[in-house]
Amino acid sequence: MELLAQFGTDRQREKYLEPLLDGRIRSAFAMTEPDVASSDATNIATSIVRDGDEYVVNGRKWFITGAMNPGCAVFIVMGKTDPSAPSHRRQSMILVPRDTPGLTVRRGMTVFGYDDADHGGHAEMIFEDVRVPADHLIGEEGGGFAIAQARLGPGRIHHCMRLIGIAERAVEMMCRRALDRTAFGKPIAQQGVVQDWIAESRVRIEQLRLLVLKTAWLMDTVGNRGAHTEIQAIKIATPATVEWILDKAIQTHGAGGLSQDFPLAAMWAGARSLRFADGPDEVHKRSLAYRELRTYMEDRA
Amino acid sequence: MELLAQFGTDRQREKYLEPLLDGRIRSAFAMTEPDVASSDATNIATSIVRDGDEYVVNGRKWFITGAMNPGCAVFIVMGKTDPSAPSHRRQSMILVPRDTPGLTVRRGMTVFGYDDADHGGHAEMIFEDVRVPADHLIGEEGGGFAIAQARLGPGRIHHCMRLIGIAERAVEMMCRRALDRTAFGKPIAQQGVVQDWIAESRVRIEQLRLLVLKTAWLMDTVGNRGAHTEIQAIKIATPATVEWILDKAIQTHGAGGLSQDFPLAAMWAGARSLRFADGPDEVHKRSLAYRELRTYMEDRA
Amino acid sequence: MELLAQFGTDRQREKYLEPLLDGRIRSAFAMTEPDVASSDATNIATSIVRDGDEYVVNGRKWFITGAMNPGCAVFIVMGKTDPSAPSHRRQSMILVPRDTPGLTVRRGMTVFGYDDADHGGHAEMIFEDVRVPADHLIGEEGGGFAIAQARLGPGRIHHCMRLIGIAERAVEMMCRRALDRTAFGKPIAQQGVVQDWIAESRVRIEQLRLLVLKTAWLMDTVGNRGAHTEIQAIKIATPATVEWILDKAIQTHGAGGLSQDFPLAAMWAGARSLRFADGPDEVHKRSLAYRELRTYMEDRA
Amino acid sequence: MELLAQFGTDRQREKYLEPLLDGRIRSAFAMTEPDVASSDATNIATSIVRDGDEYVVNGRKWFITGAMNPGCAVFIVMGKTDPSAPSHRRQSMILVPRDTPGLTVRRGMTVFGYDDADHGGHAEMIFEDVRVPADHLIGEEGGGFAIAQARLGPGRIHHCMRLIGIAERAVEMMCRRALDRTAFGKPIAQQGVVQDWIAESRVRIEQLRLLVLKTAWLMDTVGNRGAHTEIQAIKIATPATVEWILDKAIQTHGAGGLSQDFPLAAMWAGARSLRFADGPDEVHKRSLAYRELRTYMEDRA
Repeated sequence: MELLAQFGTDRQREKYLEPLLDGRIRSAFAMTEPDVASSDATNIATSIVRDGDEYVVNGRKWFITGAMNPGCAVFIVMGKTDPSAPSHRRQSMILVPRDTPGLTVRRGMTVFGYDDADHGGHAEMIFEDVRVPADHLIGEEGGGFAIAQARLGPGRIHHCMRLIGIAERAVEMMCRRALDRTAFGKPIAQQGVVQDWIAESRVRIEQLRLLVLKTAWLMDTVGNRGAHTEIQAIKIATPATVEWILDKAIQTHGAGGLSQDFPLAAMWAGARSLRFADGPDEVHKRSLAYRELRTYMEDRA
Repeated sequence: MELLAQFGTDRQREKYLEPLLDGRIRSAFAMTEPDVASSDATNIATSIVRDGDEYVVNGRKWFITGAMNPGCAVFIVMGKTDPSAPSHRRQSMILVPRDTPGLTVRRGMTVFGYDDADHGGHAEMIFEDVRVPADHLIGEEGGGFAIAQARLGPGRIHHCMRLIGIAERAVEMMCRRALDRTAFGKPIAQQGVVQDWIAESRVRIEQLRLLVLKTAWLMDTVGNRGAHTEIQAIKIATPATVEWILDKAIQTHGAGGLSQDFPLAAMWAGARSLRFADGPDEVHKRSLAYRELRTYMEDRA
Repeated sequence: MELLAQFGTDRQREKYLEPLLDGRIRSAFAMTEPDVASSDATNIATSIVRDGDEYVVNGRKWFITGAMNPGCAVFIVMGKTDPSAPSHRRQSMILVPRDTPGLTVRRGMTVFGYDDADHGGHAEMIFEDVRVPADHLIGEEGGGFAIAQARLGPGRIHHCMRLIGIAERAVEMMCRRALDRTAFGKPIAQQGVVQDWIAESRVRIEQLRLLVLKTAWLMDTVGNRGAHTEIQAIKIATPATVEWILDKAIQTHGAGGLSQDFPLAAMWAGARSLRFADGPDEVHKRSLAYRELRTYMEDRA
Repeated sequence: MELLAQFGTDRQREKYLEPLLDGRIRSAFAMTEPDVASSDATNIATSIVRDGDEYVVNGRKWFITGAMNPGCAVFIVMGKTDPSAPSHRRQSMILVPRDTPGLTVRRGMTVFGYDDADHGGHAEMIFEDVRVPADHLIGEEGGGFAIAQARLGPGRIHHCMRLIGIAERAVEMMCRRALDRTAFGKPIAQQGVVQDWIAESRVRIEQLRLLVLKTAWLMDTVGNRGAHTEIQAIKIATPATVEWILDKAIQTHGAGGLSQDFPLAAMWAGARSLRFADGPDEVHKRSLAYRELRTYMEDRA
């Protein structure tokens, strides 16, 4: 939605943004592909080829969150319009209505056994000669990478803020459980190892929250570009930290913590999957390291 | 089965062991309870009370692996026969046929999002005034804890051996994927961080395998009691190490590694759940530490 | 000095604080004892016994930072005045001039191999029937624990701020070295593992710095008591994080990083020793966990 | 000594090996250089140039263990004889008597503040037009790399065996201290976190020891080349594991654990420095990963 609001034409907004805002339809963002390392945007293989007044889309996407929901009426698809352009000008984004011939929502993907069906799941989709009017392109040809970048900051901080809420809930559950659960004659809250988990969890959350808050403040004051390092830092730190806290909360709950009787295992799977969001951690770390090194490279020049 | 072969009466063996060996029926072992920390066997709340020629079983069990399979015809249930006995003489084990009135297989438990239905799942079971003939007791009254201990060694090493096989498979998948997958112009096998994961995985498996082999050798030569420290050591080390390796294998596979298209996420959930098998790691560590400390305590006496 | 300014009598300030402020003399704080776990203040064994117009001090202290410097003219000594009082009212603090008979500065202690002689070292001191006038007591009898607590917050945040500066220096050294050092045909700054260290270092410092800043702000606005949780959190997080960063900076420097040619190994020893300052991490974690758990205990009451 | 026994000429053995075996003189091995990453043998900058019946050595070495001992009468120096040869045929080794003109033992290097003077220290040495007879070359010109490789296996396993002994001593010290030390009313051996350290230490040592034993057995049965993977594995695993155990033993000892009153801090510095021996861990991990990947590369060919 934010993407259409910012980059869509008047016609696109009228046709899709208004029903989205009214809650009449839903949308999904289709970027990740099964055959390539999507962290490298130049790898994207789906093609978007101009043919007269239309664009023709061919490719395969997966982990398209929300797409299993039949109310998800339109997709924003990232693909290659010009394979010969400079690497960051090859991609474009286009609107594809769900009922367009050639588009198949093939199946739902699971994440650690969860299909997340009640949130619309994570679909695999096939595009075979899918034709949409040329005015469905968002922004200009070759602008896909830039739009994707613009969308990343807000998307990431949103994920991180939710994970911090999840971590707080996990600590509360861990504390309550540790006070209730008795083993070997005393509440497990009195065991040193459990106390260590609780203390470490609090110490880690406090640090993480402040970094997320600073990042939000930077995005508001100097924009996404100015907050680039911080956006990457929270993307690296948050899922790993919250995954650790959830693991300890699960351990405090015994076998039940793995099951549907508590939300912990499902929250863990969500945190774990965010270590892949917008590329694996490793890609973000490399990029952050380059920025750190650059200062000293300039010194040497 | 091993338990019946070792501790069952002739009649119990004839009635249950033979059809088990013929594959006509299956059995399951019902120990874990939802309301207590089962790591402390004295916590077990299910009651087994003598009433004339019968025992009456009341209680709730969960994570009873295999119980969702309708072919699972008999359960070995751990419960308390004498709450006033010394803590390790309170428990007994008894055979309960599936069709006994009062026994309900209530639902399957998930482990992360997996129901493991094809292996019979992990059931929650309710026992309400379940009556079985007195000769269904295994061993003597108060012998449940000792039988459980006798069963633990072989059970644990079996889990550990399977996990080492899983770890080897994960390393192979990680290597093949790293050679196939290209990002930023070269196979990810050429990235230092991926090489670090592969090397660490190999170094950790080699150490772990040798400890499991030594433990098996000790069990064969000096028995389960003589191998006590090593059995605990592999129980502590194996799930944690293999979980780490599977995490890296998943990371190498991108988002697909989380899904049903690769076995990695399900294997991970299995390794993670073994951190609870026969009590959480923390209980095993404490016990192992006591044994280590005992030598020096004796010095001081 | 801060302690005298806050808790000293006019006479004490005139006699000791003024020459301290003028830089004519130095002082040291003598709390840690070799024979007991000093993290538990009730353990303190040094006795301070009233005898007429004097107090008599007997005991042994070590790791008294600054005491090897002959210019260190006065010690503030923590000891027990009333072993039968409630546990937090047993201790008092007293001023002991260096030249008092019975006081021996016995030897310097090393930290790893460093004697820190240029900063006055870390002395072991013996007090044998050391007599000082009764007016040398700081505050009231039994007030030692409270004074020690009041002193802790500022002391800790000072240590943490210095360690963050050290961490920043370590990252700069790591980056410069990684750009300069060539192995296998390229600067080690291009190795993925080194990039991972740099990125992780930056991500960790940013989180830590914000927590230290928040703690300082809380101390200024709501006081040491209001900032208790945060003061403990930075005490737990800072030495461990900075130790990790220094380890990676050393690794980037090769064997030279261990030596006197770079400040890294000495900085590491300093960070490591702070994991004991005012009690080991484990004590702080336990205390922080209790505070976290208390909220939920009250819910249950 | 082993090196001379295996690769020396009769004359070299008579002149140097015999007094070495008699304990009349000592020797040291001079490989590491300050200006290059010595993990990459092709980096070695010291030159050994033939001039008539002599070789002329020029260069700088450091961390030459044992060289500060005046009884260390002869050095085995690694240098470049032919910079234009293939990378592994450029280096040679040569015997240089201590009293040769142009050789200066410049200073001792510290390792975390320790000068290890009683074991002969770690010297920096300068070679300025140092001339030795041509027959002092060990093996053939260009054979230095091969000799260094042949020496590595035995050298590494020797280090690893010593570290395992050190780890066992650390666990014993940790246990005894934990039983002796009282905090908050009970021996710290009863604290869960300390028990966790003890258990983890035992579990890690057991695994490590078996891997070292297997490596020794492989070296005896299939030789250093056949044991290559295992030699690298113990080189990677041992210092890191033992460093972890020593850290916990130090933590159990309080501030005293950092000092000269216990051997723990010095043992820690030794374990830490071995993470650089024969190149940093990172180089060994990369090499081990290549060997693991190679199997699957061949599959693809």
